[in-house]
Amino acid sequence: MEVKRKGSLLSFRPDIKVLDATLRDGGLCNNFEFSDTFAKALYEMNVAAGVDYMEMGYKASKAMFDVNKFGKYKFCDEEDLRKIVGENKTDMKLAVMADVGRTDFAKDIGEKKDSVIDMVRVASYINEIPRAIEMIEYCKKRGYETCANVMAVSKAKDEEIDAALQMLGESPVDVIYLVDSYGSLYPEQVAKLTLRYLDFGAKYGKTIGVHAHNNQQLAFGNTIEAASWGASYLDATVNGIGRGAGNCSSELLLGFLKNPKFHIEPVLRFITDYMLPLREQGVVWGYDVPYLLTGRLNMHPSSAISFIRAGRTDYETFNGELLEKD
Amino acid sequence: MEVKRKGSLLSFRPDIKVLDATLRDGGLCNNFEFSDTFAKALYEMNVAAGVDYMEMGYKASKAMFDVNKFGKYKFCDEEDLRKIVGENKTDMKLAVMADVGRTDFAKDIGEKKDSVIDMVRVASYINEIPRAIEMIEYCKKRGYETCANVMAVSKAKDEEIDAALQMLGESPVDVIYLVDSYGSLYPEQVAKLTLRYLDFGAKYGKTIGVHAHNNQQLAFGNTIEAASWGASYLDATVNGIGRGAGNCSSELLLGFLKNPKFHIEPVLRFITDYMLPLREQGVVWGYDVPYLLTGRLNMHPSSAISFIRAGRTDYETFNGELLEKD
Repeated sequence: MEVKRKGSLLSFRPDIKVLDATLRDGGLCNNFEFSDTFAKALYEMNVAAGVDYMEMGYKASKAMFDVNKFGKYKFCDEEDLRKIVGENKTDMKLAVMADVGRTDFAKDIGEKKDSVIDMVRVASYINEIPRAIEMIEYCKKRGYETCANVMAVSKAKDEEIDAALQMLGESPVDVIYLVDSYGSLYPEQVAKLTLRYLDFGAKYGKTIGVHAHNNQQLAFGNTIEAASWGASYLDATVNGIGRGAGNCSSELLLGFLKNPKFHIEPVLRFITDYMLPLREQGVVWGYDVPYLLTGRLNMHPSSAISFIRAGRTDYETFNGELLEKD
Repeated sequence: MEVKRKGSLLSFRPDIKVLDATLRDGGLCNNFEFSDTFAKALYEMNVAAGVDYMEMGYKASKAMFDVNKFGKYKFCDEEDLRKIVGENKTDMKLAVMADVGRTDFAKDIGEKKDSVIDMVRVASYINEIPRAIEMIEYCKKRGYETCANVMAVSKAKDEEIDAALQMLGESPVDVIYLVDSYGSLYPEQVAKLTLRYLDFGAKYGKTIGVHAHNNQQLAFGNTIEAASWGASYLDATVNGIGRGAGNCSSELLLGFLKNPKFHIEPVLRFITDYMLPLREQGVVWGYDVPYLLTGRLNMHPSSAISFIRAGRTDYETFNGELLEKD
């Protein structure tokens, strides 16, 4: 690499924002069935830890998903959020994720002035970018900050990525996220992709973020790799909770960042008081061999999740099954 | 960084050697009480997986350590090793570790021609380098390959590291290891240290190796970071077994390396058949919050191990205790 890293280990970068995705990505582990007590303690903890954004969950379509089969953080109704955050009179902003094709955005996303939500993160696959931009334009007009989370770029060709970044560059989106959906990227690849995203970001005035997965125990490593080249929105979850192998752990990330506004202590207390009980209740997440196997083959983790749920431990056989599908 | 990385993700580097440290570093988790069945299966698995070196354990002084209180891999008597490996008529070489000050090397290390051991890895702190070199010279004279594993360099000043590398450069040692004993180094630091080691390596014709710990979930990331700049001896253990947070996992490393001589399947089978039962027997290793806390403070993991053994989960209090010691 001939490009310079941005800052050094001892410097702190005021451009870096930490986004806590515990309720949203963690909700994929427990059907979004977090108690109000948990959500309120998480909210207060994030404020105390200096987290910049807290993602409250999804804005999922109630026509597509049965409200009786999921916890409230799948839908993020305004009144449910206000029960947790009140008017959110803090410096921390609130985000929700809206999946292209799974959100009735014209129905469920109103005016910013009537909502405690500050940012809408639009998640789409790379072939759905025009539909993502439609949602981004809709949300921007109503006063929200917006993110585009382009999923599974590890499957995309360079020219597809460039085309996507070009379209997003010309859109009103604020932040473009590099998302390693399958936890398949190695740090060298993350560095190259981050620089590619930053090129378009510099041209069009967009900020770049990173959302990593821990299939190969690289979620934290890849997050700080992307940050070292200039990505500034960094996703994390407490104790790494998230689908399958999970995410970059807040305690690792906040323990690394040098900005004195960040504090690791509230996270540590929250792990003791809330995350360990969650594990004891049977909620499962984190690195395990089957996730490595889907990650290194650049595949969706769903088959690994099924393998683990079935109580199987025959990893070699599972690897053979994956190779047949690949 | 202006220096070029060595090779790329798709290239394979014939200079890369994988060393399995399962019995040695893993032995720190179970007092080296591995069964013959386990050791023999591990040996056969490593051969099948294409591993280059298998570390059989320590050559510890029987005057200092009671043979009744440790498994045989703490001492690695020749007859015990031969029970497992026979004459070792394979392409895989065998290593033992000898700690400066804890080995009666003149008594316990004989001539290479009478031993199945190929390599002696001499471990020392940076202030013990002259004593390490005494052992290295002794072992080289008797026909062994030698490594110098300089521990805890994260605590050393640059000028101390340079002085150590200078002395080792002028010694007959074959391989000099960058060892992140406390799991405190971030990839950027590993890159810089690796380049520093490689500078001396190039000057004196020494090979550079890396031994990482997983306190911050960076053992694999740091290992491939070091490799990407030119380190070529890479330590791993099956399923990451090792003291505290453990090591770089063989399955991650062999799943990453591109040399077709490496195979992940035997490792997967071994995890199912031998490592899962070890966990069920109560042997504990791997990433946990207390190891992150000692790692980020650049401290020995012993207090984290005690914390976990005591059944404590008050991470915030523990962090406060560490800060008082720091």
